[in-house]
Amino acid sequence: MTDLVIRNARLMTCDPSLFGLGVIDPGAIAITGGVVVWVGSDGEHPRDAKREVDAGGRLVTPGLVDCHTHAIFAGDRAHEFAMRAEGRSYLEIAAAGGGIAATLGPTRAASDAQLIAMMSERLATARAGGTTTIEVKSGYDLTVAGELRLLRCIAQADRTLRMRVVPTLLAHLVPPERAGDREAFVRDLCEQLIPQAARDKLAASVDVYCDEGAFTLEESRAILGAAHRAGLRVRGHVGQFKDLGAAELIADLGGLSADHVEQISDQGIAALARAGTVAILLPGACVQLRLPVPPIAKLRDAGVPMAIASDLNPGSSHCETLAIQMWLATTHYAMTVDEAWLGVTRHAAKALGLSGPGTLVPGGPGDVIVWRCEEPAQVPYRYGASQVEAVFVAGEP
Amino acid sequence: MTDLVIRNARLMTCDPSLFGLGVIDPGAIAITGGVVVWVGSDGEHPRDAKREVDAGGRLVTPGLVDCHTHAIFAGDRAHEFAMRAEGRSYLEIAAAGGGIAATLGPTRAASDAQLIAMMSERLATARAGGTTTIEVKSGYDLTVAGELRLLRCIAQADRTLRMRVVPTLLAHLVPPERAGDREAFVRDLCEQLIPQAARDKLAASVDVYCDEGAFTLEESRAILGAAHRAGLRVRGHVGQFKDLGAAELIADLGGLSADHVEQISDQGIAALARAGTVAILLPGACVQLRLPVPPIAKLRDAGVPMAIASDLNPGSSHCETLAIQMWLATTHYAMTVDEAWLGVTRHAAKALGLSGPGTLVPGGPGDVIVWRCEEPAQVPYRYGASQVEAVFVAGEP
Repeated sequence: MTDLVIRNARLMTCDPSLFGLGVIDPGAIAITGGVVVWVGSDGEHPRDAKREVDAGGRLVTPGLVDCHTHAIFAGDRAHEFAMRAEGRSYLEIAAAGGGIAATLGPTRAASDAQLIAMMSERLATARAGGTTTIEVKSGYDLTVAGELRLLRCIAQADRTLRMRVVPTLLAHLVPPERAGDREAFVRDLCEQLIPQAARDKLAASVDVYCDEGAFTLEESRAILGAAHRAGLRVRGHVGQFKDLGAAELIADLGGLSADHVEQISDQGIAALARAGTVAILLPGACVQLRLPVPPIAKLRDAGVPMAIASDLNPGSSHCETLAIQMWLATTHYAMTVDEAWLGVTRHAAKALGLSGPGTLVPGGPGDVIVWRCEEPAQVPYRYGASQVEAVFVAGEP
Repeated sequence: MTDLVIRNARLMTCDPSLFGLGVIDPGAIAITGGVVVWVGSDGEHPRDAKREVDAGGRLVTPGLVDCHTHAIFAGDRAHEFAMRAEGRSYLEIAAAGGGIAATLGPTRAASDAQLIAMMSERLATARAGGTTTIEVKSGYDLTVAGELRLLRCIAQADRTLRMRVVPTLLAHLVPPERAGDREAFVRDLCEQLIPQAARDKLAASVDVYCDEGAFTLEESRAILGAAHRAGLRVRGHVGQFKDLGAAELIADLGGLSADHVEQISDQGIAALARAGTVAILLPGACVQLRLPVPPIAKLRDAGVPMAIASDLNPGSSHCETLAIQMWLATTHYAMTVDEAWLGVTRHAAKALGLSGPGTLVPGGPGDVIVWRCEEPAQVPYRYGASQVEAVFVAGEP
């Protein structure tokens, strides 16, 4: 007996064995025990479903995958956003208590329960916007014990919310109190934090922020090397402000993703393409910080898989939803509609090292969105308000 | 007896006699018979309310005013959006049935009931996003009888939806079938459409699209002159692609607004400032069409009041909500948070010739939004998902 059939759908499977977005129209999908058991043409679907949903010809897609977020933090930085809109300088904002310090202090001071509650509210907003798999990075404590605590809180969200939460250990910055002590801090990351997170299975990968004002290429090499030795996959914040050559480093380690890439050399692009590393594009943060557009055409021509994410974070992109990022990708970034869709489904899953989410194929998870529109292009085209009609995770609403 | 008190609010009044956004914190507001009867500090509010809402310290603002929309149309142009994202040229899109023709045909073919239903769904989405007053332009029929029909449909939405709908007659383009007959078409607008719309009170103002590919400056002068003689206020789509000098024309006629203004001369800006004409900025369409940013700093320095609108239309901005336009204004356009707020409240109302909406002052309409956040900056800062908690129009939810 089948648990759920969704039928009479414009069904976007994102099946890599089909052309483009793998649309079956009219299509149907069957889910049992939380897993997709059948995908095909409407009318040929199993007739023994406990529940049958008639999508009325509307668009039905995989649950969206948000592959780059900093969803666990406390403190509000709207004031800093307002100062930046007024044209105030970074130094003026820092002098007024803005910047990373405005997140570090409140995050360190918050209880586990508070952090989990704040993150869960953000994740619930993401889910309402169609996200069913979400990556969450640590990175707003910057002590060994504190980062482990953030990862444990992320794991608890995993148990309480009906979403797939993928935890990442982020080597974000050197905290202010250890500015005179960088080498020892990097050693703490490599010898304590990363091995312990790996041992306790608290992170699926390690991310390093390799840029001006963050970690150098040499420090990044040490950090990702430690991750590699601990058996964790690697990724990096790369070239948001300046290209330090980290794309090549990540590719050499068989890394999952190089993120931001507003600045990346032709060699860096070629390295990503050779390694099959995903470029995660974050157009909201790019617009908010008024950065140049990444070299989309070059990434496309080189065959680098491109994902799109919200970059949900308190400093440069306080956004839980992917539809608006798809609009920015297809307008400001001049990506195609198919690229935008694969960027929040199959390619985003690939960036997390997952093969099931982001597609609707037999054996994969029954994570499905029913939209209030009919065409894939309508999701980015009709921007600004949610078009999500229903969200199913593992076949359950 | 007071109908409604909303108390314990961070109350943004936008009262022009107060500083900035006119915030009273903690503030309260009282509404009777649909009209604001009292505004002041929490605790001093009337105690005889039939209904009292405790805002719990959250932000309470005037209902938003969307002062530039083309919300009445039929037909879908998502396919054209996808083609543009693929880098296809205007000619290729037109050859595939895109462009204005893709809206004209379906709009002319739709029944009144169909047009009203489609528009009403869009207006309901706008209302859910906090818009309580919305301008709607005609312009997608381009015959005298058809444009009058669109204006009558807009008037019917006014009667069925609990929103304030402000109708505008838009002289949009010369329709394809009259391309060889421009002079006579402009004469029809001036001698038939505009006088009849004025006589039947179907439009509050006349808007002309003065740009390359639309009406020339001389044609615009004739059209707005006819509007002026018919006792209607004037406004214009100005300098979206090329500055033809229409800002000066509109200012000379004491016009309500000059809209888009990606291209505007220093003389044009000075003329708007002298006349008190509002510049209506449409950042969503600007991003979607990859146009240059308007000269915000010059408009600000000249003292031109700036409004922000959705430009809801099927070609360049299929968006019903103002919050995302506020994020674009404060990031891509480098406007301040206060400018963004006044742009969707008091200045937007001024652009429609209204003095009550867009503010919360005694004697004004009881149109109020309760938000899920506390600070004015949080509305643009937390972009992508709606933060609207409750909408009141004339004191009713």
